Amino acid sequence: MSTPSRFKKDKEIIAEYESQVKEIRAQLVEQQKCLEQQTEMRVQLLQDLQDFFRKKAEIETEYSRNLEKLAERFMAKTRSTKDHQQYKKDQNLLSPVNCWYLLLNQVRRESKDHATLSDIYLNNVIMRFMQISEDSTRMFKKSKEIAFQLHEDLMKVLNELYTVMKTYHMYHAESISAESKLKEAEKQEEKQIGRSSDPVFHIRLEERHQRRSSVKKIEKMKEKRQAKYSENKLKSIKARNEYLLTLEATNASVFKYYIHDLSDLIDCCDLGYHASLNRALRTYLSAEYNLETSRHEGLDIIENAVDNLEPRSDKQRFMEMYPAAFCPPMKFEFQSHMGDEVCQVSAQQPVQAELMLRYQQLQSRLATLKIENEEVKKTTEATLQTIQDMVTIEDYDVSECFQHSRSTESVKSTVSETYLSKPSIAKRRANQQETEQFYFMKLREYLEGSNLITKLQAKHDLLQRTLGEGHRAEYMTTRRTLMLLLRRKSLFGSRF
Amino acid sequence: MSTPSRFKKDKEIIAEYESQVKEIRAQLVEQQKCLEQQTEMRVQLLQDLQDFFRKKAEIETEYSRNLEKLAERFMAKTRSTKDHQQYKKDQNLLSPVNCWYLLLNQVRRESKDHATLSDIYLNNVIMRFMQISEDSTRMFKKSKEIAFQLHEDLMKVLNELYTVMKTYHMYHAESISAESKLKEAEKQEEKQIGRSSDPVFHIRLEERHQRRSSVKKIEKMKEKRQAKYSENKLKSIKARNEYLLTLEATNASVFKYYIHDLSDLIDCCDLGYHASLNRALRTYLSAEYNLETSRHEGLDIIENAVDNLEPRSDKQRFMEMYPAAFCPPMKFEFQSHMGDEVCQVSAQQPVQAELMLRYQQLQSRLATLKIENEEVKKTTEATLQTIQDMVTIEDYDVSECFQHSRSTESVKSTVSETYLSKPSIAKRRANQQETEQFYFMKLREYLEGSNLITKLQAKHDLLQRTLGEGHRAEYMTTRRTLMLLLRRKSLFGSRF
Repeated sequence: MSTPSRFKKDKEIIAEYESQVKEIRAQLVEQQKCLEQQTEMRVQLLQDLQDFFRKKAEIETEYSRNLEKLAERFMAKTRSTKDHQQYKKDQNLLSPVNCWYLLLNQVRRESKDHATLSDIYLNNVIMRFMQISEDSTRMFKKSKEIAFQLHEDLMKVLNELYTVMKTYHMYHAESISAESKLKEAEKQEEKQIGRSSDPVFHIRLEERHQRRSSVKKIEKMKEKRQAKYSENKLKSIKARNEYLLTLEATNASVFKYYIHDLSDLIDCCDLGYHASLNRALRTYLSAEYNLETSRHEGLDIIENAVDNLEPRSDKQRFMEMYPAAFCPPMKFEFQSHMGDEVCQVSAQQPVQAELMLRYQQLQSRLATLKIENEEVKKTTEATLQTIQDMVTIEDYDVSECFQHSRSTESVKSTVSETYLSKPSIAKRRANQQETEQFYFMKLREYLEGSNLITKLQAKHDLLQRTLGEGHRAEYMTTRRTLMLLLRRKSLFGSRF
Repeated sequence: MSTPSRFKKDKEIIAEYESQVKEIRAQLVEQQKCLEQQTEMRVQLLQDLQDFFRKKAEIETEYSRNLEKLAERFMAKTRSTKDHQQYKKDQNLLSPVNCWYLLLNQVRRESKDHATLSDIYLNNVIMRFMQISEDSTRMFKKSKEIAFQLHEDLMKVLNELYTVMKTYHMYHAESISAESKLKEAEKQEEKQIGRSSDPVFHIRLEERHQRRSSVKKIEKMKEKRQAKYSENKLKSIKARNEYLLTLEATNASVFKYYIHDLSDLIDCCDLGYHASLNRALRTYLSAEYNLETSRHEGLDIIENAVDNLEPRSDKQRFMEMYPAAFCPPMKFEFQSHMGDEVCQVSAQQPVQAELMLRYQQLQSRLATLKIENEEVKKTTEATLQTIQDMVTIEDYDVSECFQHSRSTESVKSTVSETYLSKPSIAKRRANQQETEQFYFMKLREYLEGSNLITKLQAKHDLLQRTLGEGHRAEYMTTRRTLMLLLRRKSLFGSRF
């Protein structure tokens, strides 16, 4: 409800209106440009995504082929070996060979999975982006059609406003003009009445008559102008009402367009875009997550095989592979000479005392030897434990090499330096080899001692059996223990 | 305790013994060969593992480089864009662009991780295999030294057995010979005694004297032979005892070697092998598992961004990017003409009835239009829902493409055919586009209707306000609602 200090001229009002409409027109054009630009950006993004996945598919395919070649190269090499024949036959492999086969299997698995990944990129993900691109373009066209209609409607409303405003101006102008003419007539009438209110006796009858007809004329004109004014006034009121109503409608329409319809137009462009993009990216994610799961399963299989790296069962398998080399020989039997019927140690009088003495000497020597050798054994075992501790040190965690900082821009690169510094490794190895040296020295000492003990013990036991019946029971126990031991070492049970 | 039907000759016994010893010697040589072969196989396996990881490192490096190039190519492209500047500034991106950036980040992350993998292979895993190979060779040498000593000891024992056996044979042979000589003397003595027991009276004195000296001689010889026999007999008993004792000791030594020492020799070769192999493979596993974890973290970031693909906030961001285009224009103000002081709808007598009639007509027309348009709206919304259902169909799970059969030899290969069959896609898309057509038709109809309603409603409301004070409250409510609505759409709050 502006209260201007001076009246705006019609031209000014029209100019203002036109500039306001021009601004809206420019905005409508601009909005279309924005939507078009948005669509172009989408199409470009989708093109980039397609190019990206096409290129990544190539990389994955190449990676897959390289892995396949790698696996094939070593598979071919092992396929001909005895181990592999064994593997095919009973899957009973030495544990390190088993790990090796699973490692090759894992590479083949990775190869297959990356090929699948590439396949999914090419035949699924890219296709989706292509379709989303088509859809975006089509949606934009649809949105543009609707926008065109909405803009036309809006222009029609604005034109109507212009028309009713002009009409109001026209009728109001006419009403003002009629009013001023009416006022003029009233002024004349007043003048006439003022003149006729002069004392009439001065005036001639003729003149009086003339005046009366003039008053009548003026009255008639005034009436006519009054009617004209009323008519124009009514028209002006109606025109103003129409203008006000149309103004209200126009503002409501403009408001609706900017607040609701524009949003609807953007929604038209967006229709399905986010959802389809979501599905395309989820296809990518599904492929990647599944590749990861498969990879993880394969690694778990290897980890299980690594857990089962076991020297004892491998030793058994190794000896079973070469029975001729490891099967104990026949026992040496007593070969009686020329019908000598005695085949046991004689402890009759002439030798008994000597045997007894010898037995006692053996007994005391064995006691000493055993004590000494037990010491050596303890040292040997302790040294072995030290070596075991050295070779089972848990130095294989490389997590820290895969730490990514928040901004993925900077990642530790030459991490290999930290987790395996060469001087410390060299020192560790020198230390290990020194310990080994000592271990083998002690082991030899121990074996030498135990070999001597074995020989003397055998003689001692035989003398014991020969010399005393009292020792018979002890001998039986020893024999039973021996038999059990042999039966455990089943392979050799048949011989000894 | 053989009881042969005939006596074995010395030569036979020696031959048997020698063949038995020869067999043992052959076994000892064979055992060394087996251990040597085992070591060679280990060294070969470790060489294969080194070659394998060296080659795999190359593949990983190449893969990493390709991924880096891929990321760099698209990063460079986007770095110059307005979006990226925006991203750098406030990280506030359109949700699809955000996904795109994270996708590129993920590729860079994968690139880094595969480079790290390669680095760990080359500088850690391969080094370990190299060291294990060295260790295996060294352990084999140590084991060989010990084996040499054990074999020498064993041979000494067998030689000793040979010696004592021969000694026994010799003394036993001498004892037999002495015995037979003694027996011969006894026979002669008997004969002499027999002769002297002849009635003496037949014999001449001279002859009798002769006989007596002969008996004496024989007796002397017998005594001598008896002594010799006893001596030899004792020697033979002692030799047999020694043979029996040595036999016992030999069998015990052979037994010990085959059952215990051989196992110890194999253990020497194995020392640290399984444990070190375990650590080397665990380093590989640690690297692979960590790569997987990192990959997974990256994928989770993308998944989160995909969850946040959101048209609403993107629309807001889009409009904020172009405020000039989307900011609603100034309201059209009533332009009073030439000092017309009335700026509201006049409802004085001449026009009141007409306005009232118009108001009533508007009211009934609006009621009809609203009902009609509500129907159109419902259809539009239902159609939109159908489209939403179509575009949010969960068709992105590709798990089945990554199914590995138990024997990893055969994996489904051309899986892409199954999960995205082209005819079904085409049908789905045709169906979707048909639905879209219908949706847009209905949407246009709805917008047309609602635009008309907006205009008429504005006029209706203005007339209502003008005509009745009773409607004033209602108008105020409407206005307040409107203001709230505008304030929510904060961007436009300043204008309307």
